[in-house]
Amino acid sequence: MSLTPKARPNVERMAGYKPGEQPRPGERVIKLNTNENPFPPSPRVVEAIRHIDPERLRRYPSPNADDFRQTAARVHGVSPDMIVAGNGSDEILAMAVRTYLGPGDIFAYPDPTYSLYPILAEVGEVKVASVPWDAGWDLPIDALLGTGARAIFFANPNAPTGTLVPQSRVRELAKRFYGLLLVDEAYVDFADENSLGLISDFPNLIICRTLSKGYGLAGLRFGYAIAAPAVVAEMNKVKDSYNCDAVAVSAAAAALEDQDYARATWKHVRAERARLSEALQRRGWQVIPSQANFVLATCPDGNAGAIYRALKAKGILVRFFDKPGLQDKLRITIGTADENDQVLAALSAL
Amino acid sequence: MSLTPKARPNVERMAGYKPGEQPRPGERVIKLNTNENPFPPSPRVVEAIRHIDPERLRRYPSPNADDFRQTAARVHGVSPDMIVAGNGSDEILAMAVRTYLGPGDIFAYPDPTYSLYPILAEVGEVKVASVPWDAGWDLPIDALLGTGARAIFFANPNAPTGTLVPQSRVRELAKRFYGLLLVDEAYVDFADENSLGLISDFPNLIICRTLSKGYGLAGLRFGYAIAAPAVVAEMNKVKDSYNCDAVAVSAAAAALEDQDYARATWKHVRAERARLSEALQRRGWQVIPSQANFVLATCPDGNAGAIYRALKAKGILVRFFDKPGLQDKLRITIGTADENDQVLAALSAL
Repeated sequence: MSLTPKARPNVERMAGYKPGEQPRPGERVIKLNTNENPFPPSPRVVEAIRHIDPERLRRYPSPNADDFRQTAARVHGVSPDMIVAGNGSDEILAMAVRTYLGPGDIFAYPDPTYSLYPILAEVGEVKVASVPWDAGWDLPIDALLGTGARAIFFANPNAPTGTLVPQSRVRELAKRFYGLLLVDEAYVDFADENSLGLISDFPNLIICRTLSKGYGLAGLRFGYAIAAPAVVAEMNKVKDSYNCDAVAVSAAAAALEDQDYARATWKHVRAERARLSEALQRRGWQVIPSQANFVLATCPDGNAGAIYRALKAKGILVRFFDKPGLQDKLRITIGTADENDQVLAALSAL
Repeated sequence: MSLTPKARPNVERMAGYKPGEQPRPGERVIKLNTNENPFPPSPRVVEAIRHIDPERLRRYPSPNADDFRQTAARVHGVSPDMIVAGNGSDEILAMAVRTYLGPGDIFAYPDPTYSLYPILAEVGEVKVASVPWDAGWDLPIDALLGTGARAIFFANPNAPTGTLVPQSRVRELAKRFYGLLLVDEAYVDFADENSLGLISDFPNLIICRTLSKGYGLAGLRFGYAIAAPAVVAEMNKVKDSYNCDAVAVSAAAAALEDQDYARATWKHVRAERARLSEALQRRGWQVIPSQANFVLATCPDGNAGAIYRALKAKGILVRFFDKPGLQDKLRITIGTADENDQVLAALSAL
């Protein structure tokens, strides 16, 4: 007789990551809850996918996504051995945890932030030290250093706040910290600054990027890290042997090649972000100044849950976090001008 | 001043997985070293990829690859909540280790086998108990049970031997073992039997499948597990949140739908496997009876390394494992009839 086997105790206790809700196929909604780009990917990406050679499907791909590494290295002005590609930046984050954090090690990050970080810690039996952001969403450098962490992660711009830590502060933390520092730049394409300029100075820095937001490719699952070659070499040991498929590698390289297309979408998002923020403020919302492709806004009467449900009833999905400190707020992804107009109209009608 | 951060000691010590060598793009070789299907995927797969809707690229995919789960459930006669999809069966294997094996736990498998297993153990600080196969490549059931393992994996058919453990023996192990039993059926499409018939009887069984071999899709990175719903639920907690991309999910579902096409390739491989085995035996090689899409053969003079290099010089790649017990053997993937003829001709000419 056999029984259901017991998972590891840390896994049994876990709830797992809760993704934002997905409309059913064919369901017509205005989907502003998971921070996708409002525009589809570059036509060059679609072409790259349509022209895939069946022979490339038949054979194993390059274990290290070499074509993509070459492109990313050129676009960012680094060497290919400073790039590691992953199946979404979630895989990059998981790889970084697996490489640098073992059971009992301390993993520090400012909170609130991306809800995946504590889940990666649970899987790895890593000890979390979450530190509140300083006033004005400033990086709590002293408190982070005081945790004795072996690794510090932070999202910049941060989610769900949209706030950006200035480069001078990132540099200060990188300088004073002797462990691994990962800057999760999932939303950086919509921001005024990024940390690329630090990469040659700090061998303990990983910059994590994704094509999900800036390149309209959330469905493709492609992310990458930029780091010193010694860090990339260690991460390569723990990654799945052939982690990126041939179609995704071609499509991701094509996306990065077409910077003009991507930049046009970023420009749109930034302009609409300003317009939506102002319009919400005029309606009595408090909007945290955002450098990402979403805004976190506090509703006038404090009952964000009710507004979330009312919008949903009208076919508009936004993100409500039923957590202390966030229950009076909604996170709204910047959509097309028309989608944003519909959000504003729906809010006015409530 | 910052320094290169230290990886975890277990990671620092690791060498990482060594994939079979890849020819450079455009290089013309007969590639029989990594067990790809000799035929490209079904035309329906290529169509599914070419017709991908850009809107599906823009949006996050289903977190659990729902479309694929539906198809796989129908094809295998199980319920969708008994399927978990992964980015190659390597990801499935890694997920199973992360779910069921923690630091210090014992992970047993018969050896020699797939060289990824010990690497997954190293990443997870899991203790390996590798047990030699019994005579005639029989499953060493008593020895495996005697290790006190929390999980037992074995590949069936096994790599690099190609041998198949009969279902009666798999059932005996499943019955007597109280931990997690994973049967890695990467090569099962080319075999006479499989373990699907056991799945409803054993809540501690995971069957692991891949589209890399049987469906000509090594470049797509798609694998899946079939297991009791309670096992799938635990594995879902540790998987990356959106681990399968929209293109791969459509392509993989299309591949599984076209059973007729896949079966025709399996039939070819089995016929060519018999022909190649006999021809090698006539040339004085000892060939282990194979149920996979490759043969492991002992060369007449025992110097397999020299033959490997001579074949490579002629543009034919086969796999040589420079390891004790394997140094007199080559693993040769079954190619097209023409490719197999060229291997035989090259061996005759040496």
